[in-house]
This record gives sequence, structure tokens and C-alpha cells, in this order.
Amino acid sequence: MSEVTLEKIRGAAEVLKGVARRTDMIYAPKLSTRSQVYLKTENLQVTGSFKVRGAFYKISTLSKEELERGVIACSAGNHAQGVALGAQQRGAKAIICMPDIAPIAKVEATKSYGAEVRLVPGTYDDASAYAAKVCAEKGMTFVHPFDDPDVIAGQGTVGLEILEQLPDVEAVMIPVGGGGLISGVAYAIKQLKPDCKVYGVEAAEAASMKRSVEANDKLTLASANTFADGIAVKHPGDLTFDMVNQYVDGIVTVSEDEIAAAILFLIEQRKLVCEGAGAVSVAAMIYDKVPELQGKKVCCLLSGGNIDVNILSRVIYRGLQASGRRAEIRLSLPDKPGQLAAVSEIVSKCGGNVIGVNYGPSAMDTALATCVLNLQLETRNFEQIGDIHAALEAAGYHLLRS
Amino acid sequence: MSEVTLEKIRGAAEVLKGVARRTDMIYAPKLSTRSQVYLKTENLQVTGSFKVRGAFYKISTLSKEELERGVIACSAGNHAQGVALGAQQRGAKAIICMPDIAPIAKVEATKSYGAEVRLVPGTYDDASAYAAKVCAEKGMTFVHPFDDPDVIAGQGTVGLEILEQLPDVEAVMIPVGGGGLISGVAYAIKQLKPDCKVYGVEAAEAASMKRSVEANDKLTLASANTFADGIAVKHPGDLTFDMVNQYVDGIVTVSEDEIAAAILFLIEQRKLVCEGAGAVSVAAMIYDKVPELQGKKVCCLLSGGNIDVNILSRVIYRGLQASGRRAEIRLSLPDKPGQLAAVSEIVSKCGGNVIGVNYGPSAMDTALATCVLNLQLETRNFEQIGDIHAALEAAGYHLLRS
Repeated sequence: MSEVTLEKIRGAAEVLKGVARRTDMIYAPKLSTRSQVYLKTENLQVTGSFKVRGAFYKISTLSKEELERGVIACSAGNHAQGVALGAQQRGAKAIICMPDIAPIAKVEATKSYGAEVRLVPGTYDDASAYAAKVCAEKGMTFVHPFDDPDVIAGQGTVGLEILEQLPDVEAVMIPVGGGGLISGVAYAIKQLKPDCKVYGVEAAEAASMKRSVEANDKLTLASANTFADGIAVKHPGDLTFDMVNQYVDGIVTVSEDEIAAAILFLIEQRKLVCEGAGAVSVAAMIYDKVPELQGKKVCCLLSGGNIDVNILSRVIYRGLQASGRRAEIRLSLPDKPGQLAAVSEIVSKCGGNVIGVNYGPSAMDTALATCVLNLQLETRNFEQIGDIHAALEAAGYHLLRS
Repeated sequence: MSEVTLEKIRGAAEVLKGVARRTDMIYAPKLSTRSQVYLKTENLQVTGSFKVRGAFYKISTLSKEELERGVIACSAGNHAQGVALGAQQRGAKAIICMPDIAPIAKVEATKSYGAEVRLVPGTYDDASAYAAKVCAEKGMTFVHPFDDPDVIAGQGTVGLEILEQLPDVEAVMIPVGGGGLISGVAYAIKQLKPDCKVYGVEAAEAASMKRSVEANDKLTLASANTFADGIAVKHPGDLTFDMVNQYVDGIVTVSEDEIAAAILFLIEQRKLVCEGAGAVSVAAMIYDKVPELQGKKVCCLLSGGNIDVNILSRVIYRGLQASGRRAEIRLSLPDKPGQLAAVSEIVSKCGGNVIGVNYGPSAMDTALATCVLNLQLETRNFEQIGDIHAALEAAGYHLLRS
């Protein structure tokens, strides 16, 4: 069986020229209070994630006959688009199997690269079983999302670029799902600059690699409930488990709220859109998950940007509330004319901007002759929210817990 | 008086090395159905906009005495951060005057570069008058946001980079507010590649340059009500008016909804956050405002990314509705038990996801014995919304116009 070598990664870098972008490395001053932090922006990669590197390189190694029989993959996400684009570039037929609950946007994006999408009823595992069946029947090549030395070598090209763009880097922070990306990048970096530390970052709700490494055995999680769907993997790969054990210095985890805060930080401070999986490396820096990085020059890998806009909208809303820029106020009002106007005026005098109103007769927890008013506000900060609360109470209104 | 020359722009490019980023040029395949479109990503510039180029270069031309007396500017936006960073880098004191309604985020960002921020009660014009007074009293140097040959030369460095990064570019699309950016870029491009077309793009609600050029006279608009606040300028500069007349091939306008759609497009398709002003060039391409660009290689300049997250949240919401991924359904229900549960089940069977509910007694436009239900839904597309409507009507429910 073939394996990952530096020569193979360098070969992959040659093959990827003109296909994958050499994504920019961007300094993040607002993240650099404890360490000097740079962002490797694979969210700006073609197809919106690093996945095209491994998929395209894998497909480039196939013989003419193999290309003629075509490639098949199972993915509802970034790997699907990577394989579809890779196959298109090499003139190979591609079948991508997806669970039928896959978002339309991802189905359409995959089709736009010329792949045939088969929507399989059920879960990811059902789609995967179906893909294996079709693969065997048709003699196609199955492109695994991570547990394949060629795929890993392709992802490893990110490591070469990091060392070229930031030669004095002292540590890299890399998102971990199945482990393909970190295996390739860690291998490349440890060959070329062994003193550079390599850390993996997992969503706490899907920490299959960290727990497997700690148990010294490949574990299968019962669930992987993270909105960072790109790294929601229940079981590490065989090859990636071994490579992480050998080349990675540590794995840390971040919570769902920490991931959401990192996404909002990247939007506001660096004008970059990341999906949950793509932002875990930044979350780990914001929340200081690796204290020994203090004073070091650190590269955070942003692995992808394919976030569903409905999810993004929720992340922003949550982040605005968490930073005092959205607020909900609930108060009981005497049921007589003019009350809504009076409250609105107080809020507006404090500079709050009303963007939503619910007003109705009393709920069970208030007196019968009162109405309950819910206001959604745009605010500047928690201080202003406090001012609004105080002004309403000074005017005799009774605030309810919301 | 000094003027803009190619030599000065080249000098500015030297001065800006190590201060301004050489921002990436990124191909936009999904925008390239009619033309080949590339994005010059000044939203990824330091301070989140191109403004740092002109401000820093201007400050770099000051004498030691002038630097000691300090610089002053009036801005609630990108120019404020550009001047503040420029002054910090040159060790000069900076006072930035802002109207006191300026968003906290912009005040804090400006302070973070070491500038003194003075919040002036009233409008932008009040802050500007105050800045002029302080400037005269203290003998400081006023850094104009656009009508200054050094500032224009600094912005012109973007033009040099465009020609280096995309030597066979045939047209550039540039956001226009006061006209400093387009004056510098158009000058540089017309000197070095005269056959490359240069188009300006304004918000239709603030088209002071277009209307002035058409009238052959500098006009002052009564209002500039666009959410693209970075280009909400009522009156063009003297120098920029002349330069636009001489070097720009045409100016087109885009509507507020077109700008919002462009922002959402850039988030979904290119993972880039742009403010309204920054996205007008892309809006002009999406809505084919310059039909003669068909088949041409076009560079859209993304001028900045400093969008207030509350505004961004609204833009996304509007865009989701416009593309069938959010829907509101309003229906009247007989006032008897089980109705809400029954409706919810129908919606969920069609794959709609309820994210908000309002339910209450009848409004004036419905029968007395009914209740009105408002549902906010996450949906996949208009087809799914139609399915939900049909399923509800088939079950005997009466949909109200929302």
C-alpha cells in the first residue's frame, strides 16, 4: 500500500497548480494580544474549502481506465464539491451520494461542477452504504474523505504553503474531523520544521479523535451533535489515527458557543466568512485553549467557509445578544391607552432601536388587568441596555424576566 | 499646488510597503457567466478598507513640525480608522471628530489605533465644522477624505496592483463616494493601460458624482439615504470632479436591494464580507449595468468590509426571504383546541422549520371566532413554500395575505 511521503506532498503541490488557489495568509491584529496570530484562509479556496486539494490529487493519480470508470464519493458537504470539481477537471464521471436531507445549496453547488448527485433516503450512513454498493457494481474508484494516503498528501500541500508564507511560524492550529487535513499538514511540517508545534482542534460535541488518542484506541461516538457539520465525525480513520498519534502535539476542544463567537469575530474583525468547522482554530485562540502559545507566532488554519446562511443568520443573532447589541425586554403594562407609546418613547430616548414588538393580554404570571409587552431591540452595548432598564423602572414600569 | 502624478502614485506604493496589505485578487466563477470577473479584495485591507492607503501616504508627506502639531479628520467611518492608523505609524497625534450618533464599534476601532475621538453632537456637518475650528486653532493638518492630491495618489496604488495582478484586465468597476478612490485608480490605469475601461458605481440614492457629471456642474444632493454609508456623499470634491470627468468612462447606479443582494452573494459564493459601499461594483455586474462588458475580463474593486453586524443581519434576512429560504405564513384558525399542533405538523411534514410563532385572537380582517397564527419558517426554496401553502389549504386552512 502506498503511504504519505514528503515527495508525494510536493508532487501534489505541482499537480494542484492552476487548480487550487494558493490562499492568502492574513495577520489578525485583534487576535494577537497573547500570541501573534496569522490566518491561512482556506475558506477562500476554490469550492470554499481545502477539500479540493486532496480530492483533485487523488483523482490525478488514477489511470486512464480508472478515470473512464469514474469516481464515487459520499458526502453532504465540502468533500462532495472537491470530488466533483476534481473529476470535472480530469474529465472523469463523478457520482456523489448524499443523504436526501442535504441542503439544496450544497446539492446545487455539487451539480454545478458537473457531478451526478444521488439523494439517498435516510442518514449519512445509508448514503455511504449505497455508495459502496454502486462502487462495487460499477468498478468505480471510491474517493474517501480522509482515510487515504493520496487524499492526505493533497491536504498536506497546505502545510508546505504555511511554511513558505510564514517561515518563522512556531505553532499551527488545525481543525480535526476525520483527521485528513491535520495528518497531511502535520506530516509536512514535522518533516521540514520539526520544532513547529501542531495542535488539533475539535468540537467538544464530536471529539472522536481526541478521545481515541486518549484511550489509545479508535472509539466510535454515539453522537456528533455540533453545528460545525464539516467536522462532525464519529470515528477516526485508521491511517489518520496513526498519523495524529505520531505527528500531532495535542488536541483541544471548543464548545458550540465558542465556535459561534469565533465566526462572528472573523466576520467583524477580518471580513471573512467561516463555517463552524473552519472557525474552531480561531475559537481555540480566543479562548486560550493552549496556554503555552503565549508570545508565539501561530497560524490558525481556516479550513472552510461553506456555512448555510440560515445558520449564519442565527450565529450572528446569538453573537449580537451575547455582546449586548440585541436585547429583548419584557414588561407588564396596565391595560389602558397610551402605554405602548410611552414605553416606545423611553426606549427611543435611550437610543434603543425597536425592531420587533409583541403585545397581548396578560399571561399567567401577571395580574389580570395588565398586558404583556415584548420588545426586540437593537442596542449598542450592555451599558445602554442597563440604561433602558433603569429608565423604564424610573418611569414606574415593571420589567419581567424574559 | 501639488497634483496627482504617476511618479507620486509609485512613490506612495513604496511608502505603503509594510503598512498596507497587497490584497488578493480572487476569481469569481459564479459571477463570470457574462464576463470573466475578478475581485480586488480591499475589504481584506488593514482597517477593513482601502482608506488607509491615502491617509497614510498623506501623513507620510508631512514635515517633522507638521507631524508634531498633529493631524485631524472628520469621519464616522473608514477614513477615521485610516487616519488613526496612519498617524499611529508615523508617531503623530490624531484627533478624529465624529457625530455622536456614530456606532460604538467604529469609535472603539478608531481609538484602538491610538487616536483621540471627539464625539460632536449633531450631524456629520456639525462634526466637520467643529474639526475645521479645532484645526485652525491648533495649527493641525486636516486630512480630507478624498479631495486632496496626496490622498488620491495613495488610493491610486490600488490601480498599480490591479495592473500587476491582472495585466490583461479590460475594465475595472469602482465604488464612488467622494471620488478619491476612482480618481486615483483611473489616473493610474489610464496612464499605464489607456485601453482599459474604468467605470464608477454609485448608490442610486446618493448619485452626486453621476448627476454632477451629467449636469457638467458640481451639484449638492438634498439627501444621501443609502445604507451604503461609505459612499453616502452629497457633493463631489473639486479635484475628484475634474479627474472623474477626465479619466472615467462612465458611472452607473445600483439600488439598495441590488446592493443587499450583492452582499449576500459575496458571503455565500466567495466567503467575503463587504459593506454596502464595498459591494456596489459586484451589484453592477450581477445586474448587468454595463452591457458592453460582455465577454470582457473585469476587475470589481471591493472597497471595504466595515458593515455594522446589525445591518448585516438584516441584509441576510432580506436576502433569505428574496431567495425563498425564509418565509412567513399567516393564517386564520378556528378557535378550538389542537389547531396549532395540526398546522405545525403539516409544516414539518413538508420539511419547513418553524423558527418563530405569533398566535392570538382575531384581527379586524377575520371572523370573530377565529385566531390568527403567524409562523416564521426556514425553508429551502420557493417550491417548498408553495408545497406548504398547498398542504395547508388542502387540509382546509385559510391562508391570509401577510
